[in-house]
Parts: sequence; structure tokens; C-alpha cells
Amino acid sequence: MSATAPNGSAEQSELPGSVMSREMAEQPEMLHRILDSGASRIRETAALVAARKPRFVLLTARGTSDNAALYAKYLLEIRLGMPCGLTSMSTTTAYEARPDLRDVLVITVSQSGGSPDLVASTKAAREAGAITLAVTNNPDSPLAAVSEYHIDIMAGPEKALPATKTYTASLLALYLFVDGLAGGDGAAAKDLPGLAQSLLDRQDEVRTLAARYRFAERMVITSRGYGYPTAKEAALKLMETSYIPALSYSGADLLHGPLAMVGNVSPVIAVVPDGRGGTALAPVLERLRERGADLVVFGTAEQVEQASAGFVLPTEDVAEELQPLLEIIPLQLLAYEVTIARGQNPDAPRALAKVTETH
Amino acid sequence: MSATAPNGSAEQSELPGSVMSREMAEQPEMLHRILDSGASRIRETAALVAARKPRFVLLTARGTSDNAALYAKYLLEIRLGMPCGLTSMSTTTAYEARPDLRDVLVITVSQSGGSPDLVASTKAAREAGAITLAVTNNPDSPLAAVSEYHIDIMAGPEKALPATKTYTASLLALYLFVDGLAGGDGAAAKDLPGLAQSLLDRQDEVRTLAARYRFAERMVITSRGYGYPTAKEAALKLMETSYIPALSYSGADLLHGPLAMVGNVSPVIAVVPDGRGGTALAPVLERLRERGADLVVFGTAEQVEQASAGFVLPTEDVAEELQPLLEIIPLQLLAYEVTIARGQNPDAPRALAKVTETH
Repeated sequence: MSATAPNGSAEQSELPGSVMSREMAEQPEMLHRILDSGASRIRETAALVAARKPRFVLLTARGTSDNAALYAKYLLEIRLGMPCGLTSMSTTTAYEARPDLRDVLVITVSQSGGSPDLVASTKAAREAGAITLAVTNNPDSPLAAVSEYHIDIMAGPEKALPATKTYTASLLALYLFVDGLAGGDGAAAKDLPGLAQSLLDRQDEVRTLAARYRFAERMVITSRGYGYPTAKEAALKLMETSYIPALSYSGADLLHGPLAMVGNVSPVIAVVPDGRGGTALAPVLERLRERGADLVVFGTAEQVEQASAGFVLPTEDVAEELQPLLEIIPLQLLAYEVTIARGQNPDAPRALAKVTETH
Repeated sequence: MSATAPNGSAEQSELPGSVMSREMAEQPEMLHRILDSGASRIRETAALVAARKPRFVLLTARGTSDNAALYAKYLLEIRLGMPCGLTSMSTTTAYEARPDLRDVLVITVSQSGGSPDLVASTKAAREAGAITLAVTNNPDSPLAAVSEYHIDIMAGPEKALPATKTYTASLLALYLFVDGLAGGDGAAAKDLPGLAQSLLDRQDEVRTLAARYRFAERMVITSRGYGYPTAKEAALKLMETSYIPALSYSGADLLHGPLAMVGNVSPVIAVVPDGRGGTALAPVLERLRERGADLVVFGTAEQVEQASAGFVLPTEDVAEELQPLLEIIPLQLLAYEVTIARGQNPDAPRALAKVTETH
């Protein structure tokens, strides 16, 4: 999302949330479009990058794109055994660090491709010997121009402040890229558009769940492994739209301290992948149930049954590494519905109250 | 901290917070001890590691140690130009990824050195060709045993649940190590023990600041560059002790969405380094002031003056890279004082309420 989007756009006269709503609804068609007319180009780019034999990957992004970058980090480490890091951008932009980036693939993820610090840090990386790849929604952006390679996520213009479709588009583009690096043909992703539609069709179910957060003053969102980027992105969506302070933790980190914050009525949302991430999360769910937390699970039927409430994800036949593309959709809907239930407008940034300069 | 510390230890009969209080107070003497009798061994270890010529660094840790690892990431990238990443541990422990780690230095930071997943992931890293270094408070720990190199942070036994002295000890040990890699003699750190004592002596000032958070329902903590690990660690301390949901963001990320959450009375704490990190944070502080946020600054006199309130850090003659060792001390005191002000006990984990198994 852009922090400086104009407040007086044409959408203002529409119903609250209609812009966000429309963009969420576009996701199945968009995923289909990427698979249909984008995948082969992404595979070609992957082949070119693979030929350069990078040994390490640094991912650079902010906000929603940073959560997409984290997803790519899991994929690259697990599928390709490539050590990865997320860039601390200020090391180059503020401190002018000039690292040795030979053999390093630097992937910069940005919806607009226009943020000056991302452009500057990508330019610096290229000068330092890195193989640079931009993943953006704008092939004509300055970021795409300074990068050696570019992947267009083909999401179409995004007007809502909370980014939704560009997140799932980034995930799919990054999946196809990493799958391409591994020599795959991306076939495992073919059912995603239909499954995404089946999730959008269950908005009523999400609305019922949203009711319990009408007066929530905080929220903890947890997951593990491939589901962790989903937990972070869901927390960001909830904060941007409803302003509920939503804290996301990997299940393991939650046990190292923040669990103290979870009392016997604290709302906790757990994203439970159907696979190894879910298995690793099981002891954390057990601890949360012991504490009597209000535990709402987005996951398998079995895990939803043991929770206070939940939403069953259609993931039986979906590889765990592709599940993040589906998990986030009902959580986007949840952010939307909670915000509407609280009488706020997901499309409008919080109106500035009287400006008080403090001294 | 350990999530499983017993609830019935001897300290229970003492005044609330006395264990945490005692350990915070030990920091000047402890820093002195590390400089006096630990630094030369750390420099020797650094020389051995430098001779192996690592090209990349992966840092592995959880909780408070993860914030210390993030500090090391900034140091390594800025001072040595070594690309770094923070490990997503589940990729090896849950998904059994076996990355190629030749030329990679894997640094695992853990107070106890006993966490099984840290031991397993470090062992796997060594088998995958990495140079492994454990940074722990226990030279006899399983983590130290599986690592090729080991640095003892010499903090002495830590009994309080919220880790305080092991954080500053880890920062100093990591500083001396990176400084050693760069061929330095660690001399810049010599004033830290005295400055740490001067901060502890100002506990009354912190108590006055703590009063404004008596009824706070959330808190945002922000910084940039070298100060960002401090913001994260301060948020963790506040959550562990007072249970206030404290959200930490780098200043740049705050502008990408979460700023919407900051209204005209939201409490925001900014850690403002005296140096480039502080300069990079300036436009964020400006935006926060425009929104009328309740902005409390821990930083230079000039920045404190422009804020709602603050605490002036004695950092004029301290290199920016060493300031994190000082910044955190008044924020540890703040977590302690806010918790006491709210009638809670910083030494005791939240008593479990009636256990309700939900199905």
C-alpha cells in the first residue's frame, strides 16, 4: 500500500469498503491470468537467473511485500537449500554499507516499484555485484529499470489502501519463480484460482467470525513455517483497516515471552498449515488451549474442531508450500468484516484529528 | 528468558520485581567484567573465525537473543559489508532443509544454550559445512558443545523471567566479536560501564515517565538503523512484564500502513540514535508530531525537547554502533516501573486463570 494515497479519490462516494472488496474479489481471475499468460515468462526469467548460479539470496521489501518476501525465503530455503536473508535496508540507505554481493541474488518486492529507498538499495546492490531481480506490479517503474531482471506480478491497478490482490499475486509470482529455479513447471498451482473463488464465496462465514472481534482491544496471530508469513500479513491487514493492535508471532517465539500476554480471554488466531508447519505448531495450540485463550483456527477441520471457533481451509490436496495463497484470503475478508462491524471504512485512512504540534 | 521457569522459586517471598531489579543493577559491573576478563578471548575467537574467511552470516536466536542477533546483523553489514540473514529455524527443524553452508558463518545466540531446536539447527548447520559460533551464557551448554567456536557472555546466572543483563551482555560480546573481525581492539567500549551506571541512577526520572502508561492499552515503539533492535527489545520487555500490547516497527515500515493505528492520543515511544539512524528517523517523528501522537523520545536533548516527553541519553561521545547498549537500560527500567505502577509483579509470570479446555 502507499502511505500517501490521496484521500479525495473518486471511490469516496461509494459504499465503505467497496474498493477493497472489489480488489479481493478479483483474485481468482487474477491468479488465473498469471498462470495463463505470465507463468512462462517467469519460468524464462528463472532459467536465466539459475544459469548465474547464485549461492545466497537477499530479499528486500516493506509492508505487505515484506510478508511476500518472507514467503519466498521459506520456499528458497526449503526447496532449494539456498540460505536467505531479509535486508535491513537502512544499512545501505542510511549507513552506506557496501557489501560484497558476488554470487548473491537480490530480490526486491514492491507493488509500485517506486519507493526511492528500494530503488536506491537495489541500485547499490547491483553495483556491489549482485544479480538483481525486481518483482513489481509496474514493469515501467524505476525499480524495474534499475534491476537486471524483472517479474511483472500482473495484478492490475491497486487502488485500495490495504493491499490484497497484490499480495496473492506476489506470492504466486514468487512461487512460480522459485519453482522455475528448481526446474518445475508450476503445474501444482493450477487449482488455486478455483479454490480462491471457493473461499471468497464463504464471506458469510467470515462475517459470523468477525462478530467476536467487535470489541477486541488486541489480537495475537500465530503460525509456523509456511503459515508464518500469513500470520504477519493478517496482522498487518487487521491493523491497517480496523486499527486493532494485532501482534504476530511464530509459535516458537510466542512461547518465549509474549505468551504471558495471552490471558484466559485473549483473542488468538492461529493459522494452521496442513503439513509440517501445522505439526510443529501443535504444542503451541495445546498451550493456548490450556490457558483458555479464545483460539480461532484457520486450518484443517481437525484443528478447527479443537478450537473455540474457526474456518476450515480447503487444503487437503494442496501442497503446503502453496497453502499461503489460500490461507490469506479469509483473513483479508476478516479484516474487512471486522472493520465494517466496527463502523469504520476499510477504504479510508483514519481521518486526521486536530493536528497538535507538541514541543 | 525461559518459558518454563518454575513459579515457586525462592524469590517469590521477596518484594515484587526484586529479582529483575537486582539483575538490571548488575549491568555496569558485568559490562566491566566482560571488557576486563572476556574481551581478549573474544578477540582470539574472532581472529580464528576471520582466518576462515566467511562470506555470509546467518544468525539464529529466539526472543531477547533474536534482538541481540539483529544488532549483530547491523554491525556485520555496516562495519564489514558481510551480507547477513536471520534464520527461519523451522526450515531446518520442521522441513529438514539442508542448505549448502560453505563459506557461511552461523552465529547462534542463546542465553541458556539449551533450547533443543537451537541445538538441532546449529548441529545441522555444522554438518552442512557452516562455521558455527555459539554465543551463550553457559559454556557447558549443549549448544556450546555442538558449535565449533563459543563465546561466553559472562552475565552470571539469570533468574528473572524478563531477560535484562543477558541482553546487554550479548550485545557487548557480539560487538567485541565483530570489532575483532574488523581488527579492532574494542577500546571504544571502555566508557560503557560508567555510562550504564549513570542511566541506572536516573530510575526516578523513568518512574515519572512510567506514570503516563498507567492505563495505556497499546503502545507503538519505533526506531531506525542501530536503534531498531532496541525498539524490538523494549516492546518485548513491556509485553513480558506489563502485558501491554507493544508493537515495534522500523520508522520506514511504520509509514507503510501501521501509522493508521496511531491516533491523536496513541502512545508512541521513539528510540532516536545520535547519528545516521536518528537522521533517517527524523521525517517519521515529524509525521507522528503532525498526527498529535503522544510521542516520548529516548534520545538526544534536541529530539526530547520536540517531543511530548522523553529521556535524554548520554550519547554525545558514544559511537552510534555502541549506543544500543545504553538505550535499552532506561527502557528496561520503564518496563519494570510500568509493571509496578499497574500493580503487577515483573518477576512473576501471569498466574494462570482457570484452565478451560475449548473444543
